[in-house]
Amino acid sequence: MIQAAGKQALIMRWADEFARHTEAPGMLTRTYLTAAHDGAANQLAQWMREAGMTVRRDNAGNVIGRYEGQTPDAPALLTGSHFDTVRDAGKYDGNLGILLPIACIAEWNRQGRRFPFALEVIGFAEEEGVRFKATLLGSRAIAGTFDMTVLDKRDDQGQTMREVMTAAGLSVDALAQSALDPGKVLAFMEVHIEQGPVLFDENLPVGVVTAISGASRFMVTAIGLAGHAGTVPMTLRRDAAMTAAEIGLYIEKRCSGIPGLVGTVGQLSVPNGAANVVPGKAVFTIDIRAESDDVRMEAVQDVLNEMQRIAARRNVTLDINQTHEAKSVPCAPWLQEQLSCAIAGFGLPLRCLPSGAGHDAMAIAALTDVAMLFVRCGNGGISHHPDETMTAEDAGIAADVFMRFVENFAVKP
Amino acid sequence: MIQAAGKQALIMRWADEFARHTEAPGMLTRTYLTAAHDGAANQLAQWMREAGMTVRRDNAGNVIGRYEGQTPDAPALLTGSHFDTVRDAGKYDGNLGILLPIACIAEWNRQGRRFPFALEVIGFAEEEGVRFKATLLGSRAIAGTFDMTVLDKRDDQGQTMREVMTAAGLSVDALAQSALDPGKVLAFMEVHIEQGPVLFDENLPVGVVTAISGASRFMVTAIGLAGHAGTVPMTLRRDAAMTAAEIGLYIEKRCSGIPGLVGTVGQLSVPNGAANVVPGKAVFTIDIRAESDDVRMEAVQDVLNEMQRIAARRNVTLDINQTHEAKSVPCAPWLQEQLSCAIAGFGLPLRCLPSGAGHDAMAIAALTDVAMLFVRCGNGGISHHPDETMTAEDAGIAADVFMRFVENFAVKP
Repeated sequence: MIQAAGKQALIMRWADEFARHTEAPGMLTRTYLTAAHDGAANQLAQWMREAGMTVRRDNAGNVIGRYEGQTPDAPALLTGSHFDTVRDAGKYDGNLGILLPIACIAEWNRQGRRFPFALEVIGFAEEEGVRFKATLLGSRAIAGTFDMTVLDKRDDQGQTMREVMTAAGLSVDALAQSALDPGKVLAFMEVHIEQGPVLFDENLPVGVVTAISGASRFMVTAIGLAGHAGTVPMTLRRDAAMTAAEIGLYIEKRCSGIPGLVGTVGQLSVPNGAANVVPGKAVFTIDIRAESDDVRMEAVQDVLNEMQRIAARRNVTLDINQTHEAKSVPCAPWLQEQLSCAIAGFGLPLRCLPSGAGHDAMAIAALTDVAMLFVRCGNGGISHHPDETMTAEDAGIAADVFMRFVENFAVKP
Repeated sequence: MIQAAGKQALIMRWADEFARHTEAPGMLTRTYLTAAHDGAANQLAQWMREAGMTVRRDNAGNVIGRYEGQTPDAPALLTGSHFDTVRDAGKYDGNLGILLPIACIAEWNRQGRRFPFALEVIGFAEEEGVRFKATLLGSRAIAGTFDMTVLDKRDDQGQTMREVMTAAGLSVDALAQSALDPGKVLAFMEVHIEQGPVLFDENLPVGVVTAISGASRFMVTAIGLAGHAGTVPMTLRRDAAMTAAEIGLYIEKRCSGIPGLVGTVGQLSVPNGAANVVPGKAVFTIDIRAESDDVRMEAVQDVLNEMQRIAARRNVTLDINQTHEAKSVPCAPWLQEQLSCAIAGFGLPLRCLPSGAGHDAMAIAALTDVAMLFVRCGNGGISHHPDETMTAEDAGIAADVFMRFVENFAVKP
């Protein structure tokens, strides 16, 4: 049994220890079904057992700890997050949402406290999509929405996901059995660091997520006419790079000033560009997200229209390919309300904000109502990077909020 | 002796034949002191001799044909251009400025016509800088401004220029002897395709170059803060790519509307950019050129000032390195006047324009007064590319203008 050590200290110590499960020396990298990933799964299972849970592992590689309720086989309130990471990751992204509930359950277990419902903590085996360029594998298996065609995707070594899973002892044919029965599930609540600067900027330890933003993503190639930088007068140019620049600044302007809407040109390049050549080609991406699908679609339409106007005026052609489209996933109002009550109960200011990043809760929404508790991300919100930080104090506050939420949890009215 | 065949047909045929001297199958690539380059040098020497010239080769590899004047050892009117090429080049860039005068001299030679001055046609061995990343090697040797430190530069195979020259039988120690005696030189007049769209756009066969534009070039790194494209609100971003975009559009605007001024962002990239990451870094080049150094320096200063304002407003820092600075090289007014008279003598409209690209005349200006005759470049001005074209008719007009210029040439008043 885990001894009382203060939840916040325990969470921070676990996060440090857990980060040792890495496949790359000197940095944290833990991708799906590597040896480091298996080591992390075993470590989670051990901590879950020590906290009083029974543990099972499903055929997607998810690690599921169950803390029984006052009656056997009670429906479960689900929580958890992912334990895979990006390359050269931070310690808290995903991992916090598994370690924090285990620490809280350890405390209830010491107190001998049980609830009218079971608690299940799920360590989702895969969310980031690093190894096979397919995301949310763990949570999709749990939700029963696993796309079997991704099993043919290959990693950088050319192995298919199917081969890798089989070699790891997972039964691909039994993947469907990972799906939970919606009738035995009450809700899902995910604790996650914000991975952004909003709480940091407003000096708040936690926030309630309103929705996981929908996203539209495009890859654009602008084709103008290359020319000599010295000999082609400004009036005779068909500059692909300046076309991209003008489009980028329009996107920035169009997406500013509207809460929850963001627009980004993340990739931008002039292939084979040279200082003395007017760019004949430019390639760039567009990523537009919003809490509201209507707000997003209006912005996307305006951007597409304005792009054509800019390109036409510059005598440049555009090749526009949509690479991603995902609707907004709202967090359930009744769960937001209970989470807000838990926060307010500690006298903390209530901040509701959308999540611009995707999370396991997005997939689990197909199974049950979801909620998310955001924890302040230090260093101005840096994440997916070793400089990702979270204070012990914030970990403690988030754990207190989580416990209050669970202790006062009322099933959907 | 070369038979009369019509100068324009001869020039076009020679340009086609000459393009066969290439180091790359299926494309024209002829870099300094390769076997293809040596073959081209021998071919030039042969055509020069057939046109009635004596030929010498200097220790930079230049091929110099001399058509004696009415008296032996008369001072010489120089002409010529370079016979090296870029990779996958056009046939006329450089080469035209050697072949055209040879064709004209062949005609005078058939007529037994001599002038009070000698004519020297120089095939400059190197101008483009492809092999050793050092330009104008041939014309600098002739002008006596060859920079001996470039001899230590290496090609892609790791050989130094010194080693390559020695292996080709050129005496590095005797390079200084390539410099012509200014007292024996009257002027230099270079015929060159425009490599730009101005004459094409205005439907003119030839133009008089007023100056070779000065140029300022910078490499800039913008450093902002990378962040998640979904989680960082627009107001909290420090987007390096949008900083570069705004600077690029300012450059474009500042350099528009002023004749002879051009500004280009030719390289632009977000290193390791990803669609879902706000760019923390962007790298780009700036190239600003103008006929007038004052006009250029004012534009450069405005751009540098505005860059700082844009970066400061966006909380992005800039690392600005100047990589190139060259003053404008004016063409001598007395030569421009004589060239203009030759053009006007054929009833052609007179168009004076700066050269935004560098040429051998730029280096020869250190030796003697220079002039340049531009010939229309087809295909909207495409050059440094196999689609570079020039019509036979334009070649004939340019040859006529060249002959009239030489026949009426009066030494500097």
